[in-house]
Amino acid sequence: MENGRKWKFQGNEGLTTASSISIRGVLNMLMDNLNQDDPRVVIPLGHGDPSAFPSFRTPSVAEDGVVRALRSGQFNCYSSTVGILPARRAVAEYLSRDLPYKLSPDDIFMTTGCTQAIEVVLTVLAQPGANILLPRPGYPFYDARASHSGLEVRYFDLLPEKGWEVDLKAVEDIADENTVAMVIINPGNPCGNVFSYSHLKQVAETARKVGIMVIADEVYGHQVFGSTPFTPMGLFGSIVPVLTVGSISKRWIVPGWRLGWLVTNDPEGIFKETGIVESIKGYLNISSDPPTFIQAGVPHILSRTDDEFFSRIICVLREAADICDAKLKEIPCINCRNKPEGSMFVMAKLDLSLLDGIKNDIDFCLRLAKEESVIVLPGVAVGLKDWLRITFAVEPTSLEDGLSRVKAFCKRHAKH
Amino acid sequence: MENGRKWKFQGNEGLTTASSISIRGVLNMLMDNLNQDDPRVVIPLGHGDPSAFPSFRTPSVAEDGVVRALRSGQFNCYSSTVGILPARRAVAEYLSRDLPYKLSPDDIFMTTGCTQAIEVVLTVLAQPGANILLPRPGYPFYDARASHSGLEVRYFDLLPEKGWEVDLKAVEDIADENTVAMVIINPGNPCGNVFSYSHLKQVAETARKVGIMVIADEVYGHQVFGSTPFTPMGLFGSIVPVLTVGSISKRWIVPGWRLGWLVTNDPEGIFKETGIVESIKGYLNISSDPPTFIQAGVPHILSRTDDEFFSRIICVLREAADICDAKLKEIPCINCRNKPEGSMFVMAKLDLSLLDGIKNDIDFCLRLAKEESVIVLPGVAVGLKDWLRITFAVEPTSLEDGLSRVKAFCKRHAKH
Ligand SMILES: Cc1ncc(COP(=O)(O)O)c(C=O)c1O
Ligand SMILES: Cc1ncc(COP(=O)(O)O)c(C=O)c1O
Repeated sequence: MENGRKWKFQGNEGLTTASSISIRGVLNMLMDNLNQDDPRVVIPLGHGDPSAFPSFRTPSVAEDGVVRALRSGQFNCYSSTVGILPARRAVAEYLSRDLPYKLSPDDIFMTTGCTQAIEVVLTVLAQPGANILLPRPGYPFYDARASHSGLEVRYFDLLPEKGWEVDLKAVEDIADENTVAMVIINPGNPCGNVFSYSHLKQVAETARKVGIMVIADEVYGHQVFGSTPFTPMGLFGSIVPVLTVGSISKRWIVPGWRLGWLVTNDPEGIFKETGIVESIKGYLNISSDPPTFIQAGVPHILSRTDDEFFSRIICVLREAADICDAKLKEIPCINCRNKPEGSMFVMAKLDLSLLDGIKNDIDFCLRLAKEESVIVLPGVAVGLKDWLRITFAVEPTSLEDGLSRVKAFCKRHAKH
Repeated sequence: MENGRKWKFQGNEGLTTASSISIRGVLNMLMDNLNQDDPRVVIPLGHGDPSAFPSFRTPSVAEDGVVRALRSGQFNCYSSTVGILPARRAVAEYLSRDLPYKLSPDDIFMTTGCTQAIEVVLTVLAQPGANILLPRPGYPFYDARASHSGLEVRYFDLLPEKGWEVDLKAVEDIADENTVAMVIINPGNPCGNVFSYSHLKQVAETARKVGIMVIADEVYGHQVFGSTPFTPMGLFGSIVPVLTVGSISKRWIVPGWRLGWLVTNDPEGIFKETGIVESIKGYLNISSDPPTFIQAGVPHILSRTDDEFFSRIICVLREAADICDAKLKEIPCINCRNKPEGSMFVMAKLDLSLLDGIKNDIDFCLRLAKEESVIVLPGVAVGLKDWLRITFAVEPTSLEDGLSRVKAFCKRHAKH
């Protein structure tokens, strides 16, 4: 109302609401609550981005692929809609190593991170009346994007007493004629669990039974360090059509490079038949692509990165998970029954009855930020109230320091 | 229907339709119609991406900014929602050079190309019942994204008899209580026109009168080579709030780098008051960011690129526009009354009455592709049936060759 003038436009509240359920939104709120006078360094156990820590520096060979492509001057041009062929071919080869059939470059769509791959999938599936099944706890970007697209969300539980396996009975119960897909995240965010081969097969059979596709978020693919090996969901592509989403963000520890993919694991050709492939292309036609020169670096990145780098990162993560598990065991009000076997996170339950005057998980995290300069994500942000999601993918010394501060905090607020 | 099984999901036809009005879609159709047996090289006068031509190679100093950021290892991390501060500060300084007030980094939102900036704006404005005014001819990505968001589109004409100025009377006539914004593209795609200071001021006053914001697409900003200088719409930000969208795609000839911006030119603070800024942040919170290391290269790119590079490109474009104008004058059935003064395109009217058996502009372009291996965009793709949009931003020798082929084609198909 400038000069009493009425402008006809106004902000879209739906967008503000959608983003308030983002992890980014919650973490920003916690950061705003930090005590600026605390001389100690802030320890970020809230987000899945360890790229700033020396132990997690990506190898220079990965940079080389991108630099070479950029310096060639051949990739300043727009990309094709689906991504440039060399990149798609490289991803097809990379993922086919773990599959009983060969993916073709036509199965691959290059995206700006796994984030855009998820956006594409949820946009394509958002038909009037349709609903999608999401895991609880889960990754709230799915909720935010589904809500933005008008796709109804229903939740099935991951069961802590079963190592965070999917409650398959619930999937059958909540699916109806309008259910189009279910999402699994493996290795798991936020639980740090890794699904076994046999459980994934059951997931595939359940999805087939109810007639829905599986969306497999494998952004943490191969990031496993426990006893369960990583099984790609695409292995079950002839039982049920699978859309796999992934990226180089986590395994190469370069989330800022924004390079991901969307993959049709569909030896039976159901996605073509049902028009899903056409819709994916249609939406990509009206979306921004990942930078062409980064795509052009992908063959180099995927084929030349030393196994030694991956093993080293796995070692660091295993050590960090061990520290995390040991340290949490020393804190009576934080219970963690499942030691993480993959990804970068663990879910731990708060026992508020042991604490004095702390109302809930958000209250816990806000005070922890203020009093100890440690950021931890309240479970409510990922769908489990009065739990915590703790990132252990930080420099091991920082992790010890951070968890010691959490311990001191809990001790100080313990009921006596 | 695999094994008689009914899967419950299906493709979203709306997405296929939305993308069929994209330039990419139309160009792909023309490419499919090329004659594979023609030994001549294909001459692409259809799209605005000259980066493959040696004369249009970006300077190595621009690459340096990106390479240095990547090699530092400091920018492998996720970006903040709005873009990293050094990039926003650099864009604010770059754009403020041409403004009577100073933009702050908070006015700048980094996007994956101007494409994502447009996506953000149209998503933010898409409220139930709202409509937006687009120029005709125009850039069909606006139509596709508006349609995808459920934002109603109304058109005002650009007037060829007035050097493609906005029909301001029409703007007043078609705007109603639900109109939220009007879009101008300056320098113009597809017309190659450049709006004068006084015309832009009239645009601002008209928009203010009807109570709507102006979205100024300045992706071709500074790419002018005629008698009219480039005037940024932000100059009139205190008459009417202006959202400017732009990128480094065109001026630096690196569309594949996908680095753009969305800018609030709003000294009166209307966008804050009306919640537009919050909505922009909300949508960016659930969107993929431009790669962090490319953002980190922006200060170097914007401040270190030699004026000599820009002048050279302007010279090449001016020469190309001259060739284009001269060559088209030799073709009786193609009429171009306005010589381009900016961007990379010109609109020319087809006189089908002089041609034998050519039904319309699409027919013309399909046959031209097949018979002469020249790609030209049919005007219908940008909203003007039986016109052509010709890109002159190609290597001058290719341009001459291409237009000679067009001339031969027209001669062969002339009525006698
Ligand atoms: C489960 C899950 N999916 C997707 C993403 C997004 O990944 P990207 O960085 O590739 O966009 C994340 C990032 O944390 C994630 O945890
Ligand atoms: C008018 C107009 N706006 C926006 C764009 C998209 O620009 P970018 O490459 O920065 O996404 C283009 C590209 O051709 C354009 O012509």
